[in-house]
Amino acid sequence: MKQVYLDNHSGTRTDERVLNEMLPYLKGSYGNAQSMHSLGNLSKEAMEQARHSVAGLINANDEEVYFTSGGSESNNLAVKGAAEAYASKGKHIVVSSIEHFSVLNSAKRLEQAGFQVTALPVDKYGVVAADDLKQAIRPDTILVSIQQANPEIGTIQPIEELALIAKAKGVLFHTDAVASVGTIPVDVKKLGIDLLTLAGSQFHGPKGAAGLYIKKGVRVIPQIDGGIQENGRRAGTENIPAIIGLGKASEIAKSEMPENNQKLTALRNRLISELPKKMEYVYLNGHPQDRLPNNINFSVEFIEGEAMLLFLDSAGIYISSGSSCASKALKMSHVLAAIKVDTAVAQGSVLMTLSKYNNNDEIDYILAEFPPIITKLRNMSPLYAHFKKTGNRQAAGPGTDYAHAHDHEEEEE
Amino acid sequence: MKQVYLDNHSGTRTDERVLNEMLPYLKGSYGNAQSMHSLGNLSKEAMEQARHSVAGLINANDEEVYFTSGGSESNNLAVKGAAEAYASKGKHIVVSSIEHFSVLNSAKRLEQAGFQVTALPVDKYGVVAADDLKQAIRPDTILVSIQQANPEIGTIQPIEELALIAKAKGVLFHTDAVASVGTIPVDVKKLGIDLLTLAGSQFHGPKGAAGLYIKKGVRVIPQIDGGIQENGRRAGTENIPAIIGLGKASEIAKSEMPENNQKLTALRNRLISELPKKMEYVYLNGHPQDRLPNNINFSVEFIEGEAMLLFLDSAGIYISSGSSCASKALKMSHVLAAIKVDTAVAQGSVLMTLSKYNNNDEIDYILAEFPPIITKLRNMSPLYAHFKKTGNRQAAGPGTDYAHAHDHEEEEE
Repeated sequence: MKQVYLDNHSGTRTDERVLNEMLPYLKGSYGNAQSMHSLGNLSKEAMEQARHSVAGLINANDEEVYFTSGGSESNNLAVKGAAEAYASKGKHIVVSSIEHFSVLNSAKRLEQAGFQVTALPVDKYGVVAADDLKQAIRPDTILVSIQQANPEIGTIQPIEELALIAKAKGVLFHTDAVASVGTIPVDVKKLGIDLLTLAGSQFHGPKGAAGLYIKKGVRVIPQIDGGIQENGRRAGTENIPAIIGLGKASEIAKSEMPENNQKLTALRNRLISELPKKMEYVYLNGHPQDRLPNNINFSVEFIEGEAMLLFLDSAGIYISSGSSCASKALKMSHVLAAIKVDTAVAQGSVLMTLSKYNNNDEIDYILAEFPPIITKLRNMSPLYAHFKKTGNRQAAGPGTDYAHAHDHEEEEE
Repeated sequence: MKQVYLDNHSGTRTDERVLNEMLPYLKGSYGNAQSMHSLGNLSKEAMEQARHSVAGLINANDEEVYFTSGGSESNNLAVKGAAEAYASKGKHIVVSSIEHFSVLNSAKRLEQAGFQVTALPVDKYGVVAADDLKQAIRPDTILVSIQQANPEIGTIQPIEELALIAKAKGVLFHTDAVASVGTIPVDVKKLGIDLLTLAGSQFHGPKGAAGLYIKKGVRVIPQIDGGIQENGRRAGTENIPAIIGLGKASEIAKSEMPENNQKLTALRNRLISELPKKMEYVYLNGHPQDRLPNNINFSVEFIEGEAMLLFLDSAGIYISSGSSCASKALKMSHVLAAIKVDTAVAQGSVLMTLSKYNNNDEIDYILAEFPPIITKLRNMSPLYAHFKKTGNRQAAGPGTDYAHAHDHEEEEE
C-alpha cells in the first residue's frame, strides 16, 4: 500500500544528510562539550559550528542562538524567562489567542504567579490586528508573544508591523517561529524582534534540539537551573548529536529554500484548489494567501474527525486533526474556535502539512482516496441524512453537541 | 597514540546495540507519538516499551516513569516541581551541600521565590549524617533532596535510612541517582523514596533522554508547560529515538550489571591502590568503601589541575577535574570544599570515571603515563620547590592563592 505522510507539522523525516552528520557523534565522539580534553573540544567546536549554521538561517549573530531540547522548552524559556527577568518593570504580557499551548500555558502559569495576560483575538483568517495590539499594550506591559505562522491553519502574521508597535512602546517582542523557520525566509533583524523560537524537527532536523534567539542585551531567567551551559541560560549536558543535526538541517534549509518553496506551494495549491472540487461542503481554514507554503487545513462538514483520520490511515494517508499536542485530547481546536469555525463543522477538520519529500503522485493519490472516504462516512452520518432531507445543517438532539461530548481534559489515568 | 577515556561521568559512549535500536526511529519511523495514525502509534508503542524497560531497571511501575531531556531537567522538575506543588504545606526544603548544581541552583531559585533551604553538611568522606537530617526537618519542611551517589567523589549515601527519616515526618524524598542508576542496583521501592532522577547518558544510552520517577500519588508542577505529553507533566514533542535508546540502555545495564560491576570494581581498585604507590602526595577523595565501582578521585598535591589535564590529554588520557558542568569555570569544586580538602590541594584534583569499555591495558597505560607527568609538573612548580626546601606545604605569597585567582563566575562574554 502507498504511504503518504502529510503530518509534517507533528514531525518531519530526518534528512539523510543530517543523520550522516550526526552519526559520528552518536558513535565515537561522545565527549561532553564542557570537558577539558580533546574529545570534549571536538564536541564543543562542532556545537559552535552548528550554532553558526542556525544563526545563518535566521540572520542572527552566533552568540544570540541558544540551544534547548525542543520548541516547547524554547517557548517556555522565552515567555516565562523574559517575564520573570522583567517583572520589576511590570507584570502584563500580551499573546494571541491562537498561540501554541507552550506559549498559552506558559502565560497561564505566569497568571498564577500574579501576572496579567491579554489574549488578542484574530480575524476569520487568523490574523492579529495591529490596532488590537496597540490597544492592548499598557504601561506595565513587558512582553508580547505572537507566533510568526500558525502551525494549524498556516496563517502568517504581520510580525514586522506588530514588532514595531511593541518596540515603539519599549516592550519586548517574542515570536514562536517553530512553524515558519526552515520553511519560509526568516530574518530576525528585519523582523525587529527580541526573541524567536525555532525547532529543527520541523525542517528535517532531529528531535531533541531546538533554538531560542535572544537578542544581545535581552535578559531571560533560566527555566532549567544548574550548570554553566549556554552561557548560564540553559543548564544540562548539551545534546551534541541533535544540535549538530539541527545545524546541518539549518544549512540545508537555507540553501534549498527557494526550490523547496516553489515545489511546496505548487503541491499545496493543488490540494487547496482540487480537493473541494471533488468533495462538497469542504472549507479552507486560514488565510488564502498569507499562509505557509506547506499548510492545508480543511473543515469537512458532516464528518467526525477521528473516524476520518482512521479511514485515511487505512489508506496509508497520515494526517492530523490539528495540533498534535492536543489531538489525542479530542477537544475542539482553540485555533478553529478563535477563527469562529462552527463547532460541529470544526469536528471534521484535517490538517495536512507537506514537506520536500512529498510529490505530485502523492497528491494524485490523496485526491483519489480522500473523496470516497468522505462519501462513505457521510452515508453513515445521521447529521448528513438530516441535512439532505431537511436542508437544515444543525440537527436537533444531543448527538450533535460534538464539542461537549468530547470536552474531557487530558488522558488522565 | 593510545586513547583512554576515563571521563564517563561527563558522558558515556553509546552502546552499539543502543544505537542500532535507535536508528530506525532516526530514519524512517519519525511519527509523533501524539499523532493519530499508524506512524504515530508505532512511536507511541516503542516509547511505552522503553518506559517499561526504564521502570524495570529501578523496580518502578511503568506509569511512574516520566521522560525528560536530561538529568538536569529531571532534577529541576523534581525539586522545583514538588516544592511548588506542596508550597501550601510549607516552604522549607533540605538538600545536601554536595548535590549537583541542578539541585543546588533549583534550590537557590526557590529561595528567591520565598522558600527556605537547609544545606546539610557531610563528613570527610562526603556522607550525610542521619542525625543532621533529623535535626533539619521542621514542621514546614516539604521536600528532602539528597543524591544517591556523588558523581565527583563517588560516595554512596545511606538513602534507605535517610528516606525513612523523611517518611516518618511526612516529608517527600527525592534522590538524584544520575551517577548511580545503571551502574549499581537501584530499587525505588526498597529505597522508599518518592522521586528519583536518572539519565541514560550515564550508562551508555544517548544524550537527550532521561527519566524522573514520580511515585504514584506524588504531585509535581510541570516546569515545561504546553501540550499533554507525559500525562501533562512535561510538555514537548517526545524525543522518540533518544527515549528508545534510554530504554535499550536500561535493559542492557540491568542484565549486565553483575558482570560489569565486578570488572569496574577491579579496575577501580587497581587505580586506587597502585597510583599512590607511583606518585607521592596523592590522596583519595570520597569514601574508601561506600563508593561507586567506577569512581576514582585523587587530589594530587603541588599540581595545578588545568596543566595536569592538558598534559594527560596530550598522552591520550581523557579525564576530568571534577564536575563537567563547572570544569570550565575553574572554581574550586563545592564537593571538595564540603569534605574540607585543602584549597591548594584541591587544585590538583582528578576525577576518573570508568565504564565497561575500559580494560586492564588502559589501567597499565595510565599507571605508566600519569606519574611522569606529575614529576614533570612538580619540577616546574615553585610550590613544590618551596616544599622540598623548607618542608612547608603552604608557600607564602600571592601565587599560592589558587582558589581566589580562579574565582571568576561564568564564561560571560
